[in-house]
Amino acid sequence: MSSSGRSALILIADGTEEMEFTITYDTLVRAGISCTSAFVAAPAEPTLSYGGSTAPPFAKGSRGINILPDMYFSPVDCTPEMYDALIIPGGAKGAETMSGSSPVQHLVREFLEQGKVVGMICAGSLAAKTSGLEKQPLTSHPSVKSSLDQHFDYSEESVVVSGKLVTSRGPGTTFPFALTLVEMLCGKEKREGVRGPMVFPEGTPW
Amino acid sequence: MSSSGRSALILIADGTEEMEFTITYDTLVRAGISCTSAFVAAPAEPTLSYGGSTAPPFAKGSRGINILPDMYFSPVDCTPEMYDALIIPGGAKGAETMSGSSPVQHLVREFLEQGKVVGMICAGSLAAKTSGLEKQPLTSHPSVKSSLDQHFDYSEESVVVSGKLVTSRGPGTTFPFALTLVEMLCGKEKREGVRGPMVFPEGTPW
Repeated sequence: MSSSGRSALILIADGTEEMEFTITYDTLVRAGISCTSAFVAAPAEPTLSYGGSTAPPFAKGSRGINILPDMYFSPVDCTPEMYDALIIPGGAKGAETMSGSSPVQHLVREFLEQGKVVGMICAGSLAAKTSGLEKQPLTSHPSVKSSLDQHFDYSEESVVVSGKLVTSRGPGTTFPFALTLVEMLCGKEKREGVRGPMVFPEGTPW
Repeated sequence: MSSSGRSALILIADGTEEMEFTITYDTLVRAGISCTSAFVAAPAEPTLSYGGSTAPPFAKGSRGINILPDMYFSPVDCTPEMYDALIIPGGAKGAETMSGSSPVQHLVREFLEQGKVVGMICAGSLAAKTSGLEKQPLTSHPSVKSSLDQHFDYSEESVVVSGKLVTSRGPGTTFPFALTLVEMLCGKEKREGVRGPMVFPEGTPW
């Protein structure tokens, strides 16, 4: 893959939906977007230090796949100046950790204030509410709709683009979510170039 | 998720396509199928021992996601008696390692001889050839078609079921591939029960 010069920060935590994380990360890498995954620790978890350096633990996925994050999430290493996009995947427990983190909430606001792309999928959309984003079109997994539909113009569309905020519904919508992010970051031609070799079945509606 | 009493062995190696691995594993777990991932080392890689125990290394995915396998692949721990299905994902380098492994080739034959399900996707279908399976309907990623179409009744269908052998094409066909495996192992009702909460877009052809 050739580098696009673009970069994305993708959050991960214990309980992250591993399909949503993996499809997004992999699809963006196929577009030449440099991806970095950052582990957000649950409030009760201490950050472990080994001889002065801090190595992230595995993120235990919602269905038991253990993924090694690229680094720990920290407000110093995760800034809108360093990345073109911020992605918050779903998985109930992982999304609870991310959306409940005040540094993550701060980062969501900073990315959007600086005109950078923010993607949220599934229960990850809860971070739109906890970050205090203004009322705008948004979607999420149906299981968290009742927490969001009073605060946003709630939609049942698979992918909802509201300015630089992109929201989506679940594992089954992660491909069109990721391809939408590719299009916003790298253009329509790159989206088509990435889509082809993935060999979607005929009639796939994205 | 409730247990189905069914189990699947999913191979992984350096260079495995992480979407194909993750979508299959996660979807099967959602169906209550107990999944175990086994790391197949490339021929040049030594098996590392620490104090008598052997822990598998990370599998370095084809797009840079590092996944911790559940165990090392070994002919002793990976038998058709222990699992209802064997899955071989793609990713050029990972599939080369798996399809070139004579213990893996032996296992593919044993699973099929015992009437167990074998799934291969993308370049993983190369294992059908290296295992010496008889001529039958099969598909793969288009990039390895020319290695396979002399030996099999090559198809461009997204998912091809030939007895207990299920083959498929790439990341974009992994959801229907995994749902087909769920149906074969647990029935049509379970397939629909797993499919719903994934929230596929309207018009998705699987």
